[in-house]
Amino acid sequence: MTTSRLVFEVARPAGSGQPLVRSAVGPRAGILTLRRGQVKTPVFMPVGTQGTVKAMTPEDLKEIGAEIVLANTYHLYLRPGHDLISELGGLHKFMHWDRPILTDSGGFQVFSLSPLREISEDGVTFRSHLDGSKHHLTPEMAIHIQEHLGSDVMMCLDECPPYGADHGYVDNSLEMTTRWAKRCRQAVSREDQGALFGIIQGGVYPELRSKSAAAITALDFDGYALGGLSVGESKKEMLDMVAHTVALLPSDKPVYVMGVGAPEDLVECVGLGVDMFDCVLPTRNARNGMLLTSFGRVVIKNAKYARDQRPIDETCGCYTCLNYSRAYLRHLYLAREILAYRLNTWHNLYYIINLMKEMRQSILEDRFDNFKKMFYERRQDPADTGDDNGLSDQPQSHLSEIF
Amino acid sequence: MTTSRLVFEVARPAGSGQPLVRSAVGPRAGILTLRRGQVKTPVFMPVGTQGTVKAMTPEDLKEIGAEIVLANTYHLYLRPGHDLISELGGLHKFMHWDRPILTDSGGFQVFSLSPLREISEDGVTFRSHLDGSKHHLTPEMAIHIQEHLGSDVMMCLDECPPYGADHGYVDNSLEMTTRWAKRCRQAVSREDQGALFGIIQGGVYPELRSKSAAAITALDFDGYALGGLSVGESKKEMLDMVAHTVALLPSDKPVYVMGVGAPEDLVECVGLGVDMFDCVLPTRNARNGMLLTSFGRVVIKNAKYARDQRPIDETCGCYTCLNYSRAYLRHLYLAREILAYRLNTWHNLYYIINLMKEMRQSILEDRFDNFKKMFYERRQDPADTGDDNGLSDQPQSHLSEIF
Repeated sequence: MTTSRLVFEVARPAGSGQPLVRSAVGPRAGILTLRRGQVKTPVFMPVGTQGTVKAMTPEDLKEIGAEIVLANTYHLYLRPGHDLISELGGLHKFMHWDRPILTDSGGFQVFSLSPLREISEDGVTFRSHLDGSKHHLTPEMAIHIQEHLGSDVMMCLDECPPYGADHGYVDNSLEMTTRWAKRCRQAVSREDQGALFGIIQGGVYPELRSKSAAAITALDFDGYALGGLSVGESKKEMLDMVAHTVALLPSDKPVYVMGVGAPEDLVECVGLGVDMFDCVLPTRNARNGMLLTSFGRVVIKNAKYARDQRPIDETCGCYTCLNYSRAYLRHLYLAREILAYRLNTWHNLYYIINLMKEMRQSILEDRFDNFKKMFYERRQDPADTGDDNGLSDQPQSHLSEIF
Repeated sequence: MTTSRLVFEVARPAGSGQPLVRSAVGPRAGILTLRRGQVKTPVFMPVGTQGTVKAMTPEDLKEIGAEIVLANTYHLYLRPGHDLISELGGLHKFMHWDRPILTDSGGFQVFSLSPLREISEDGVTFRSHLDGSKHHLTPEMAIHIQEHLGSDVMMCLDECPPYGADHGYVDNSLEMTTRWAKRCRQAVSREDQGALFGIIQGGVYPELRSKSAAAITALDFDGYALGGLSVGESKKEMLDMVAHTVALLPSDKPVYVMGVGAPEDLVECVGLGVDMFDCVLPTRNARNGMLLTSFGRVVIKNAKYARDQRPIDETCGCYTCLNYSRAYLRHLYLAREILAYRLNTWHNLYYIINLMKEMRQSILEDRFDNFKKMFYERRQDPADTGDDNGLSDQPQSHLSEIF
């Protein structure tokens, strides 16, 4: 695979003097150069399921500092269709976003959304959640769709077994995922300049993660993702799998943990050497009125905010915090005003992207451990833990953002 | 009433040489100076029912060129409450809008939304559409609430009889509206610097409009509104009442027709000498996927736009038209994406505000008749008249923007 699709430069802490070999797992900062621009890592990718990050314009996203977004292949394939998007000049032009886009393979949505799915060696047959129509997705088709979307980083089609799948099932599944990964790699058009990442599965079984990592890295992809996490396992299981697997990956390639986005999980995973993340958590929580802050969660509907003139987070420099009070945001949320979704989303994405920037800076200045200590200290008295609307600190499933 | 609350300068066409006396009805341009800024007339005021123009930030509204917005007293009184807004520094600070705000009196919403209303000489008793709680609104209370909101232009409480009300009912009603107007005028605090407009009723009966105009103008308000229009009467009846009534009003005061906002109605009413308008039409139609253009309506969900790369209106310079295709807007609308509401609202408000600007310029250059001719010529082949989603060119009721 040519390196023109993707260049990844790792900058470890200035004082560490460590070579670019992952002899020890640890936080790292880097720059990912893709055909449509550079992305500073560690990076959080806002989720733009249907060709739009909900409630935000591309200009909003740029103002917040987003350098790359994720789009969901499954959704765009079903509506409006990759052929239509391709005919109109590709996804970037369609959605008016000129920075990099990472697309998933569609597999996860097939497994999580479709009312029917039949997996065979050839691929997966499913029914559309929109109209019940029957479709067949193969590894080759997943690449074909992503190329037609004009993706800058494509993902291999994989099977994502549910949490709780037994050892035997997960073992067989990851072997098929490896064969699918090989087919994906072969399906890439010579002309296409999108990068391609392999996905490592293996559930919560360390030896299967090792097996999958060995098989997938042997295929030499532009980067590596950890799939099958954040699907219901405990936080400890998730972090154990990340730590175990990251240590097995080549140090000169970006590492992406799919579906992780709670602030604490981001901090822990960055500490383990992960470079890339995506999650619906900040955007979905925003629409549910749950706001992320340096001191924990704020549930904006709570009565105690009715006359609260303060911004969501007095240490935050986002557009929402600079201009609106908790009282106004509570009013908008209770009145179900569209502006509530936008202002809340702006804040949550700004918070997460700023968190990534702060972590990057602390890594470059060789003070990540201190950053992490401060991060947890500020959260010792969370604002609204008692009534968090059913949303918890547990890893959230990395669903797409349909509604 | 002091003129410091409001100064209105009328600029008739340079060549017309007409005095500032409404000897003949006709289009006019002006500048309305309120305590929070100047407003160029004729002006369209976007509706921000619950303290937000749906889907738009104040910065968006300024970029579009909005100089004044309308807020609904009834809604803000019920939620979050005028006392709360006053305590937090007033509506401008609450909603982060530093330009003028006109507030209605709450009367229209009581008559159109409340499941119960009992009208007496003292005021109107109603139940909240939110929780069924019982409230009593008097002329004094309407002023009290508007002053607490910090309104720049307040409206008198009036009764708005339904279309079809008989002559006797309308006659009695407008007499009570006159008594209420007197009480509103007396209820204004000496310190308050908000202007106060009287409302002329009279249904579709010319002699009753004359009677109401004489009584209300005798009270010497800062401006005059025509109420009870756009409530179901025919377009001809509406325009006849406007023409009839405008001729009776003092030429040195702004004239406001409430609830009118269809492009054709704006053009006709400006031609008759009206200075101010508000209507939910552009914003509500936007959320229903009906887009306003120089060549007529575009119903964006129509299949013919699926692969249409063109902007909504190729002659439009708005953010939406500069950056997005009809195909993308159709996709967003069908996917019920929040961004659809924002981009469509941006376009429709831009279209209407730009239409007002064009009319103003044509008046200043003494070519309004020609403007009007061109306006209709461009609309001779409307885009989507056949399937307009149930929305028509009929005057729309000037409801508030709840959902």
